[in-house]
Amino acid sequence: MIDINREIEALDWSRAPKGLYEPIGYTLAAGGKRIRPTLALIASALLGGNEKDVLPAALALEVFHNFTLLHDDVMDKAEVRRGRPTVHVKWDENTAILSGDQMLIEAYKLLSDVPADKLPQVLKWFNEMATGICEGQQYDVDFEHQSQVTIDDYMMMIEKKTSVLLAYALKIGGYIAGASTAQLEALYQYGLHIGLAFQIQDDILDVYGDPKTFGKAIGGDICCNKKTLLLLTALETEDAESKAELLQWLSVTDRNEEKIAAVTALYNRLGVRKACEAVMETHTATALAQLDKLPQNSACEKLRELAEKLINRKS
Amino acid sequence: MIDINREIEALDWSRAPKGLYEPIGYTLAAGGKRIRPTLALIASALLGGNEKDVLPAALALEVFHNFTLLHDDVMDKAEVRRGRPTVHVKWDENTAILSGDQMLIEAYKLLSDVPADKLPQVLKWFNEMATGICEGQQYDVDFEHQSQVTIDDYMMMIEKKTSVLLAYALKIGGYIAGASTAQLEALYQYGLHIGLAFQIQDDILDVYGDPKTFGKAIGGDICCNKKTLLLLTALETEDAESKAELLQWLSVTDRNEEKIAAVTALYNRLGVRKACEAVMETHTATALAQLDKLPQNSACEKLRELAEKLINRKS
Repeated sequence: MIDINREIEALDWSRAPKGLYEPIGYTLAAGGKRIRPTLALIASALLGGNEKDVLPAALALEVFHNFTLLHDDVMDKAEVRRGRPTVHVKWDENTAILSGDQMLIEAYKLLSDVPADKLPQVLKWFNEMATGICEGQQYDVDFEHQSQVTIDDYMMMIEKKTSVLLAYALKIGGYIAGASTAQLEALYQYGLHIGLAFQIQDDILDVYGDPKTFGKAIGGDICCNKKTLLLLTALETEDAESKAELLQWLSVTDRNEEKIAAVTALYNRLGVRKACEAVMETHTATALAQLDKLPQNSACEKLRELAEKLINRKS
Repeated sequence: MIDINREIEALDWSRAPKGLYEPIGYTLAAGGKRIRPTLALIASALLGGNEKDVLPAALALEVFHNFTLLHDDVMDKAEVRRGRPTVHVKWDENTAILSGDQMLIEAYKLLSDVPADKLPQVLKWFNEMATGICEGQQYDVDFEHQSQVTIDDYMMMIEKKTSVLLAYALKIGGYIAGASTAQLEALYQYGLHIGLAFQIQDDILDVYGDPKTFGKAIGGDICCNKKTLLLLTALETEDAESKAELLQWLSVTDRNEEKIAAVTALYNRLGVRKACEAVMETHTATALAQLDKLPQNSACEKLRELAEKLINRKS
């Protein structure tokens, strides 16, 4: 299979004006798992497609994903990503806005090399994916200031923010390779449910992860009252006393260590971890079930392994 | 011809999440001359095209243009546009960044409805246009901090920042209508040179416009040492005394009224206005000459009138 890291490194960002292109190269050079282009390439291999045909879309997906990170970091005022200063810190905010805009355009430039007969449909799906991400980001922001957020709201938000990009990566890869409608739907649903399971696992690891392997501080979501599946599940308890105690802790903005310990203890008492793991396992099972509808070859096996790896990950 | 204002008003921005879509509707409702979609429609009419075929691209060009205004206002910290608070003032900066991103994606959504056989080429040109705008914006920022800017640098910058969007609007409109390669080149060059003439006229009006009709304060560019064609032309003078006096005034950051009067007097003494008007007229003539290569119909006449109107404008 094409070495996606090498293909990304081969993109040339040395052109002028430097203030526009250097931050794009810097952002893409940060690495990452390259999961989205890899999914597009696997979907193509699964359907016996020519990997060169899917490469432009695969690269477009990765550039788009990194564009969202660049602008998200501005909006979140995040100073560090993957151990390096973010673009708006290393350069300035205006540079981050404008080079992010150009990065989004660069994604569409890469996409324009999709085989012409496939381009109209791929462009529409790419746009739907991009729209989903922006809507998900907006809902995420809205939910921070919203007192009532249901578990359904939350699932809708993470579907848009995380899952649709994985789902469309697979669907676009499969489509370019000539997949049938039923196969495209299976690929899409696999991506969607893997994404949901991944995000729920993320929420669980933030509380129950091993500090040695997790990579960031445990309990970060608890400190800032982030409306994760764990918190929303706990808030649905019918145990009035526990709920009152939880609400009490949500109003605490200092004493972080004490707050993390107390909220974790509440989660344990209410069986929140188990409940969330059950939801995660349901989505993993739904994802894996899609694979039965696809050709049983080594690419399909990779998707099976990926599902298991994502779920059993420690960081 | 299609009523482009009505088509823009018909775009629906009432969907959720409101925080993402309301600022897009707000930005587009500000009005403006709708010059870019109109150029695309005129080019199509000129070549006998079906205006419904060109409408998606025409709308995409207008939405894209308004996206650039939205993000430019954030970067410039502009508080008012067309008499109304800008998006980052009415909402906040993060809303302006994210809804701007979505607006760029919306432009590509509109573009995806271009007739399928024309889409691959139109998408490539649209991307080149968008890239030109971002590069032009970056050069504009770079030039502010750069001591040496030549007239060539300046012309390259305004070509990217202003002209390519007009040029590609015409070229894309003509292409969808089935124009020949020579006709496409004539349309492109017309748009390019009209854009240059327009921008130079803008620079001249800032100093020599009638305060009653100009709409903004006269001398704004002089106050902030903006590297306009007038200033760059004046700086190229071989009259050492005038140049020294000009450089002296560039270091003055208060006494605006006095500065405007003195720099204008220097411009008058050096014949800067005439020199810039000559450059403008050359570009207008080049633009008008392109029209001889195109069918002589009422649409072509509209382009001729537009050229004359742009150049003789007072605001």
